[in-house]
Amino acid sequence: MNSYQMQELIIPAKTKIVMLIMDGLGGLPREPGGKTELETAHTPNLDALAARSSLGLTIPISPGITPGSGPGHLALFGYDPLQYEIGRGVMEALGVDFELGKDDLAARGNFCTVDADGRIVDRRAGRIGTDVNQELSMLLESIRVEDAEIFIKPVKEHRFAFIMRSPGLSDGLSETDPQCTGVIPPRVRALDPDSEKAAGCVNQFISSAQKLLVNKRPANMILLRGFARFPTLPTYQEKYGLKAAAIAVHGMYRGVARLVGMQVLDVGGQTLNDEFMTLEKNWASFDFFYLHVKKTDTFGEMGDFDAKVGAIEEVDAFVPRLLALDPDVVIVGGDHSSPAVLKSHSWHPVPTLLFSRYVRTDGIPEFGERSCSRGSLGIIPAKNIMPLALANALRIAKYGA
Amino acid sequence: MNSYQMQELIIPAKTKIVMLIMDGLGGLPREPGGKTELETAHTPNLDALAARSSLGLTIPISPGITPGSGPGHLALFGYDPLQYEIGRGVMEALGVDFELGKDDLAARGNFCTVDADGRIVDRRAGRIGTDVNQELSMLLESIRVEDAEIFIKPVKEHRFAFIMRSPGLSDGLSETDPQCTGVIPPRVRALDPDSEKAAGCVNQFISSAQKLLVNKRPANMILLRGFARFPTLPTYQEKYGLKAAAIAVHGMYRGVARLVGMQVLDVGGQTLNDEFMTLEKNWASFDFFYLHVKKTDTFGEMGDFDAKVGAIEEVDAFVPRLLALDPDVVIVGGDHSSPAVLKSHSWHPVPTLLFSRYVRTDGIPEFGERSCSRGSLGIIPAKNIMPLALANALRIAKYGA
Repeated sequence: MNSYQMQELIIPAKTKIVMLIMDGLGGLPREPGGKTELETAHTPNLDALAARSSLGLTIPISPGITPGSGPGHLALFGYDPLQYEIGRGVMEALGVDFELGKDDLAARGNFCTVDADGRIVDRRAGRIGTDVNQELSMLLESIRVEDAEIFIKPVKEHRFAFIMRSPGLSDGLSETDPQCTGVIPPRVRALDPDSEKAAGCVNQFISSAQKLLVNKRPANMILLRGFARFPTLPTYQEKYGLKAAAIAVHGMYRGVARLVGMQVLDVGGQTLNDEFMTLEKNWASFDFFYLHVKKTDTFGEMGDFDAKVGAIEEVDAFVPRLLALDPDVVIVGGDHSSPAVLKSHSWHPVPTLLFSRYVRTDGIPEFGERSCSRGSLGIIPAKNIMPLALANALRIAKYGA
Repeated sequence: MNSYQMQELIIPAKTKIVMLIMDGLGGLPREPGGKTELETAHTPNLDALAARSSLGLTIPISPGITPGSGPGHLALFGYDPLQYEIGRGVMEALGVDFELGKDDLAARGNFCTVDADGRIVDRRAGRIGTDVNQELSMLLESIRVEDAEIFIKPVKEHRFAFIMRSPGLSDGLSETDPQCTGVIPPRVRALDPDSEKAAGCVNQFISSAQKLLVNKRPANMILLRGFARFPTLPTYQEKYGLKAAAIAVHGMYRGVARLVGMQVLDVGGQTLNDEFMTLEKNWASFDFFYLHVKKTDTFGEMGDFDAKVGAIEEVDAFVPRLLALDPDVVIVGGDHSSPAVLKSHSWHPVPTLLFSRYVRTDGIPEFGERSCSRGSLGIIPAKNIMPLALANALRIAKYGA
């Protein structure tokens, strides 16, 4: 069913849906035949909820494809991640909690080192300290470009987010990072006629930056890549008739939620307790809550199996507080897998449970990769989760007579 | 595989396929964790057949979408229900067993009450008796419109089916039912140039109807909505090379079967026994039989769990008579779920079994929602059932060299 057909069927209801996402939830056993992180974790509350739920595995993008956080989340939110792309520049800006708007063009920036002839000698400027980066970013933000506003937001070490704001900036631009040393970084070229204006503005900025940084060796030049505009997506309100809220600590996830029109709530802290308190405090005001847990992914990417197990157990302890709110529909899942043994995101389908009073329960009292692979949700595209959640919330009318 | 590719592979055979459809078969437990209607029913014959079959669950339209009877059946018949739409007017006409043809434009009609100024005071004319409706429908059918034939078929209370027959009638028409009282019902407008002729004819009819009904208060006016043309679908003969017969008591199902080119058999009664006798009597004359059971849905929609259980058990008792005919392929399934606890159609996947001497049997001796979710057919789109049935009937040639 295409999204237009779906939109036609949306009906109002007073039901509430919670989507609890443990980033990088899916895992692998330490040794073949062993238990995954989730299977190892002691999760009495999730197991009890699983027994009352439909279980399944979600495929974020397509079989064998490892998703980045952007497409992984878009799929969970019900958008086809192959149709809607979020460019690298946009992800970088979202990652520092920058409130991107429709007139913004974003890119990933690096400080780099060039020699007297302007040839790159170090693409990362010796990984300068973040404090130096912050100072230099402020300097760059002082640059004035005709016809456009500039924002430079420091990330870590040599990286920063570059944002240029002006109506009519297209993102058909070549990159200035040649991905090698010994060459002069090329200026930006417009790859289509619509992007001429943007190319001119960006090159003006680069020239000014070069002059400002000339004596700042090792960070005496910049490289820009991944130019991308803020994508336009139908909002949760338009697509699903949902008043949706996002509860997340990290900028990137807050940003992706903002992209789809969720109201990003102020968590007022960094802990899971802060996140669940935010959920409780705002319970009356929204139809849909997306609650994001980062640590599962962080430990997966670090290769720390035990710490990932611990992060899952920490979430489990909050499940009773979630259920005490009496939500109509609960989804527990992840945006992708991050097995500790791989120390990275992976392509493996993600364990998922769907709870409501109208699901056919599987009676499997365990939330894990293997139990979910036996569940009645099946192994399904992640983008199918939202229609199922809406159906269980009695928010979709009958199709056809 | 698209339908053209499929059509190319169809080969003749003398095998026979039976599709036994229990309307609204899928259900939900009365209490979380309990048994569904089908799981509760004592079905020794279906259970024995399940043990010799491949089991699975069918998704009629797409995940989370609740189908109407039209799209639910189209999917079972192997047509993409999102590609072929059956409009509301057409369903209404099929429901009263009207033999729609390619020049027909159909709509849902209501008798309503208007005041002296022509403003609607009751959209349902106080739900007049069906006998009054029959009389007034005959009166309306006497109306003559230039260039088009008119048929008015009473349904129940204030409802009737409106059919206008003439070449070149398009269905891009606005509705005359404002869905509220206090206003004068608008005339029909053509929403595209092709529908100008139809708009003219319909408005002529409405003017004449208004004059004829002026003294028939409370039913002194009519409202028309859901204008739809008879859709053109490839027939079972064209698509599958099957000589197909439909055995159904209710008009709507007979009508949908006629839409896809099945020969609709005279059942000569209303009971399951009448339907199975019709099957036996016509066994030699067709390759494919669609046999429709209505009661399962009726009781599901009424919220009568026990009566739905009884209706399933009643069908079970006829299974030996079906098997005694020695069919090559048997499908037992439903067009959608109608859980008694929801008192309506629902989005839940539908238990389905596929029996032939060439299926990989699952060895699961139970026909129910949970047993089917473990079956080797998987959880599949309903439109995939027909290709699987044809394959098992050895009616599809090899694709490619």
